[in-house]
Amino acid sequence: MAVSKCTRLSGPLIKQLLDSVDNVLFDCDGVIWRGDEAISGAPEVINLLKKTGKGVYFVTNNSTKTRKMYADKLAKLGFNATEEEVFGTAYCSAMYLKSVCKLEGKVYLIGSNAMRQELEKVEIEQIGVGPDHVSGTQFDWANVALDPEVKAVLVGFDEHFSYMKLNKALQYLSNSDCQFVGTNTDTRLPLEGGKAVPGTGCLVKAVETAAQRQAQVVGKPNRFMFDCVAGKFNVDPNRCLMVGDRLDTDILLGSNCGLKTLLTLTGVSTVADAETHQKSGCPVRQGMVPDYYVDSIAELLPALQG
Amino acid sequence: MAVSKCTRLSGPLIKQLLDSVDNVLFDCDGVIWRGDEAISGAPEVINLLKKTGKGVYFVTNNSTKTRKMYADKLAKLGFNATEEEVFGTAYCSAMYLKSVCKLEGKVYLIGSNAMRQELEKVEIEQIGVGPDHVSGTQFDWANVALDPEVKAVLVGFDEHFSYMKLNKALQYLSNSDCQFVGTNTDTRLPLEGGKAVPGTGCLVKAVETAAQRQAQVVGKPNRFMFDCVAGKFNVDPNRCLMVGDRLDTDILLGSNCGLKTLLTLTGVSTVADAETHQKSGCPVRQGMVPDYYVDSIAELLPALQG
Repeated sequence: MAVSKCTRLSGPLIKQLLDSVDNVLFDCDGVIWRGDEAISGAPEVINLLKKTGKGVYFVTNNSTKTRKMYADKLAKLGFNATEEEVFGTAYCSAMYLKSVCKLEGKVYLIGSNAMRQELEKVEIEQIGVGPDHVSGTQFDWANVALDPEVKAVLVGFDEHFSYMKLNKALQYLSNSDCQFVGTNTDTRLPLEGGKAVPGTGCLVKAVETAAQRQAQVVGKPNRFMFDCVAGKFNVDPNRCLMVGDRLDTDILLGSNCGLKTLLTLTGVSTVADAETHQKSGCPVRQGMVPDYYVDSIAELLPALQG
Repeated sequence: MAVSKCTRLSGPLIKQLLDSVDNVLFDCDGVIWRGDEAISGAPEVINLLKKTGKGVYFVTNNSTKTRKMYADKLAKLGFNATEEEVFGTAYCSAMYLKSVCKLEGKVYLIGSNAMRQELEKVEIEQIGVGPDHVSGTQFDWANVALDPEVKAVLVGFDEHFSYMKLNKALQYLSNSDCQFVGTNTDTRLPLEGGKAVPGTGCLVKAVETAAQRQAQVVGKPNRFMFDCVAGKFNVDPNRCLMVGDRLDTDILLGSNCGLKTLLTLTGVSTVADAETHQKSGCPVRQGMVPDYYVDSIAELLPALQG
């Protein structure tokens, strides 16, 4: 069906695409909502997709919310969705530590309360959440008290990130048996009006530089996020569509997993960005070129109502 | 005279090498002292070099001390040295902003009180030193109050590094007219007993990742450190020796500037490290192979006393 990449999705092509899939994965921020407001038409699209029998799942690199918090926000904005349909990196990191790392021990967590809650739900003990200011001298920092039960360092978004946290991560990771996991590598959190604040990728990079080790990254574009969905629900990659606003996370995840991909222009990336990747001749960057694009997912609405 | 690289310096070769130079640059930590103790024999070596008429200068990537603080420490440990002979990155960064960046405006400083003092000495105003904890929401962070007179971000060692500092650096650097300078990229500060704490390189990397820009790095191996010395004193690179314990900073600086290079084994790097670089076939890594090595600079003593 798809003849060339980066095609504007319109007319009869919309229904053709939707008929060709059983499951649709949506990124959240910049796709179904922006900040605290739903993208106009997005709740109708999601709710109609589910009504026609499609599986709909929410796949986000944001590590600051539990599944429950996402489900509450979805409900409030008019989306028909359950906790089990949400896959954020707070939840997926806990799953990763449990199922891939087979962690037996505690986690030193640079992250949020939401991450703490998701770890607790799978019975992983953690330490580290909240402010941790520096005191003393270099000697004190190098000899800071460590918990011998810590067997992994997990780095997610943490507005209390500090030199002391960076130092503790280094001290734990100096033990080569200590595992090193990051939620995602997004370098910035984009906000309304073109502004942005530093993202988790900055914190992961600082810890990687100190530890002289590379983190295992759970979030998109790592296929683990898709595996989490596919492990719980019956998802055939050939009949699955990934919808997102970022080429380097959402679209690349889709390509990595053999999904169909749809870029929506209500968020970070542009068609020009996609065309630059397409022309690059670089195989990795080809994976960032979506099959289709729309101005907004509201454009799917007529085909669903028809 | 030098026939092959990475030669053990001994016997008559020592006097030959010393006779072939007029100036000697020494790194400090791991070379002339370790922590708060002089390397045995190092003060005698430095003092005799000066007595025989050599210029001796101290070139360090450490940004936590002013020239005055270094001169005091040198005197206390028995080294015959003046403030003017010390070139640390706190001082050199101030010089860099003044002479290379031609800065007209304030600096947002992620760094130490010592850096503040060196900036003040060259009449550059700065803000940012000391703790800066986070509060509020993402919206508050993105709209944090900025000083419109800030025209450069300078990142050095700062144990008060925090998410809020990272965020402010990002906000300033979103203006492409704002210059971006780092003192050095050493990833760790090594301490006695094989321990280490995170170095300035981790902080620079975090800010680079957030800002999606690369810092101009003042410290070794950037030749600006040598230019600082050569700009003040009469130094012929062909008749100058660089002595250090790190291949990737000290020895590479020497190679970059056409100096003779001597690795001392009282610090970070080993002869095996140097041999690995030598065998790599990579041109950049060849620059990290010293001309000579000694176990300790104390081995220069007999040739100076003779």
